[in-house]
Amino acid sequence: MTFLTRNLALLAALAVTPAYADDASFSGATTDQLAHHDPIHWVDVGQIEKSLEGKPPMTVGFDIDDTVLFSSPCFFYGQQKYSPGKFDYLKNQAFWDDINKNCDINYSIPKDVAAKLIAMHSKRGDTIYFITGRTQSEGERVTETIKRDFSMEKINPVVFTAGDSTKTTFLKDKGVKIYYGDADGDMKQAIEVGARPIRVLRASNTTYKPMPKNGAFGEEVIVDSDH
Amino acid sequence: MTFLTRNLALLAALAVTPAYADDASFSGATTDQLAHHDPIHWVDVGQIEKSLEGKPPMTVGFDIDDTVLFSSPCFFYGQQKYSPGKFDYLKNQAFWDDINKNCDINYSIPKDVAAKLIAMHSKRGDTIYFITGRTQSEGERVTETIKRDFSMEKINPVVFTAGDSTKTTFLKDKGVKIYYGDADGDMKQAIEVGARPIRVLRASNTTYKPMPKNGAFGEEVIVDSDH
Amino acid sequence: MTFLTRNLALLAALAVTPAYADDASFSGATTDQLAHHDPIHWVDVGQIEKSLEGKPPMTVGFDIDDTVLFSSPCFFYGQQKYSPGKFDYLKNQAFWDDINKNCDINYSIPKDVAAKLIAMHSKRGDTIYFITGRTQSEGERVTETIKRDFSMEKINPVVFTAGDSTKTTFLKDKGVKIYYGDADGDMKQAIEVGARPIRVLRASNTTYKPMPKNGAFGEEVIVDSDH
Amino acid sequence: MTFLTRNLALLAALAVTPAYADDASFSGATTDQLAHHDPIHWVDVGQIEKSLEGKPPMTVGFDIDDTVLFSSPCFFYGQQKYSPGKFDYLKNQAFWDDINKNCDINYSIPKDVAAKLIAMHSKRGDTIYFITGRTQSEGERVTETIKRDFSMEKINPVVFTAGDSTKTTFLKDKGVKIYYGDADGDMKQAIEVGARPIRVLRASNTTYKPMPKNGAFGEEVIVDSDH
Ligand SMILES: [Mg+2]
Ligand SMILES: [Mg+2]
Ligand SMILES: [Mg+2]
Ligand SMILES: [Mg+2]
Repeated sequence: MTFLTRNLALLAALAVTPAYADDASFSGATTDQLAHHDPIHWVDVGQIEKSLEGKPPMTVGFDIDDTVLFSSPCFFYGQQKYSPGKFDYLKNQAFWDDINKNCDINYSIPKDVAAKLIAMHSKRGDTIYFITGRTQSEGERVTETIKRDFSMEKINPVVFTAGDSTKTTFLKDKGVKIYYGDADGDMKQAIEVGARPIRVLRASNTTYKPMPKNGAFGEEVIVDSDH
Repeated sequence: MTFLTRNLALLAALAVTPAYADDASFSGATTDQLAHHDPIHWVDVGQIEKSLEGKPPMTVGFDIDDTVLFSSPCFFYGQQKYSPGKFDYLKNQAFWDDINKNCDINYSIPKDVAAKLIAMHSKRGDTIYFITGRTQSEGERVTETIKRDFSMEKINPVVFTAGDSTKTTFLKDKGVKIYYGDADGDMKQAIEVGARPIRVLRASNTTYKPMPKNGAFGEEVIVDSDH
Repeated sequence: MTFLTRNLALLAALAVTPAYADDASFSGATTDQLAHHDPIHWVDVGQIEKSLEGKPPMTVGFDIDDTVLFSSPCFFYGQQKYSPGKFDYLKNQAFWDDINKNCDINYSIPKDVAAKLIAMHSKRGDTIYFITGRTQSEGERVTETIKRDFSMEKINPVVFTAGDSTKTTFLKDKGVKIYYGDADGDMKQAIEVGARPIRVLRASNTTYKPMPKNGAFGEEVIVDSDH
Repeated sequence: MTFLTRNLALLAALAVTPAYADDASFSGATTDQLAHHDPIHWVDVGQIEKSLEGKPPMTVGFDIDDTVLFSSPCFFYGQQKYSPGKFDYLKNQAFWDDINKNCDINYSIPKDVAAKLIAMHSKRGDTIYFITGRTQSEGERVTETIKRDFSMEKINPVVFTAGDSTKTTFLKDKGVKIYYGDADGDMKQAIEVGARPIRVLRASNTTYKPMPKNGAFGEEVIVDSDH
């Protein structure tokens, strides 16, 4: 196909009539709406690193689902297998055993932002904990998955906390100074224990709805952290 | 001031507490809201030029206020001088004489997007009309202003139409093929006479409110055209 | 924890020093950069539907991976299982059999935008084909997966084309009028056969890199279509 | 014109062929580029107010040009009148006398963001200084202009500082705690004296180029503050 005929084909292909306003749902946007930014304290990983310069090694914590791993494939699988159309699977130990042992290691996609954050904190000599609200399983392989995905030399075993109070107690006991998470609950818990809350964006193709409201606590939010 | 002390000063300067969510108006934004784009047919000047390739010279029209000139300084001035706090000045011939003869040439700021569009159409050999809903004045200098601001070799006298029907009649009579404007009315009139409507963004610091809803007609909207 | 102590805790938590410019990578952004929009022809599903009003039922085509299904979990799995760190798995029939039969139905996440598009075209009575560049497998369950995920009453069997020429031949033979896809190749093939190319955004957490350049062909791009 | 004929006219008007990629300058944008946010600490006026809760009245400072007033019309006028095409007018006392006495009061457009900030600080009982790098003029009316534009009950006379060192001395002497400005210099001076630097966006239709790099110092930047 020559350049000319290709362009002619494109002309034909594109000679369509766009929607118009008379009864469309989109009614236009003003210049200020188009240039608007939400009042969010955006940061990148370099800025976080910068803010820690000169500070001694510290303890930091990461939530797991949608923060470190895009694990929606496993929750999608679990719902279909253990309680199609319902949320009962979340109360089923068999599901938790299945996901913790078999699923993440195969199907959960590691997030780029977590790779950067983990590398940065490792370089600083910080102690890192991965803390999840998931239910514990004998023989879990989530720890192994994270260690592999982020090429970590060593890793503390993943901390399973089935409940918010357990989580805050852990954060307090370990003296966690920064806590990264995607959920509103993560931010609240960080604030509650006096840790610095930093938001990671939950990807928009997550199955975990409703979506959290990033920046709702005045917390820092990491740019490009949906992946 | 040394680098170190400067940074220390910055530390002190920036050690402020951001707003938090408990009672702030901003309640956060979801990842999909943050990544959302309005369904607008954005184009740049190069794409418009491309779409005209191979077509013979044609007649095109431009609205003036907020399309070619940022003339809000003159309307701001006019309101204060002729009817402070009111809109009566818009019906006062003295105001129109004043703005058309004395103001634009001194205080109205030419728009970059108009410079690009005029250069592009001039290069193509197109016939250009500048058409305004302003009231006519003897001895107007708007034509001279536009010619100077955009370094035009020659220019058709600005067309003053005090009313929509006059404008559509003119567009039809001249066979205008493309009409550029910032107002909804400009787009409607273009559509009415079968011209291709192309939207220029009204700058957000305009005094002319309420703001138009760009893209409301499914029309093309020029990127970066607020200036 | 009282409101006051919670706020005090937040004060302490947030009293951090942001990065500053002396040696950070981010060097700021001008007002025009901040308000810039790419010259993309964005559309929403309602506008596409509108553009088809009054037209008789037609044949439309959808790419599958990253257009209809977020199938990266399966490719992530396949690479680890069949050729860790390499791309050899893509030439391995065992991988294709595995993904086509076992993986999508469990782990691939259906996209919201596809649900809307399929519903819209079904309502119009259009004929829909799902066309993939994947290698064929005996006993594939991709067809069944799509039918289930999008609650389709009936479905044409998925068309497996291992190669671009096969795909264009199919599009031409069936007289496909609109072709939805996320890849540049999808757009090119649509243009080549005179179909209307419409871009669906590949999610940024895909494992399929490098990312395509949406809007590169002047094609329509669907807003919010990363999920 | 009936609804139908209007739509038909629109169909005709819009049946244009968009630009395509073969040789256009825009080569598309990836999903992550489209969803990218700059790592800027955005705030709105409510968040600033919140951050000051419980603090006693303080002294704050505002830059004038492009922070409080959109005064480009006056600089545009001045250049044409006193040194067409050159920057000599900025060293001409006649220009400064002219702008300070005659121009702002008529043609400079007050910024909405300044109205909000001034109202907020006035309500708090803060002391406000307006500080400009402009050259002083006998009989200046800038003070009167700002007082009128922002409906202030009383106002400190505008401080004219023709030079950075004068400005920092003033900021230090008065113990300015927050300094609002659009220029990089404004941010630097605030940092130098230990004040909290807050950026106001210079409008993109300003005549004052090159544009500053908002957020370059890690400073807070006010959303929607271009107008
Ligand atoms: Mg999570
Ligand atoms: Mg106008
Ligand atoms: Mg694809
Ligand atoms: Mg300034």
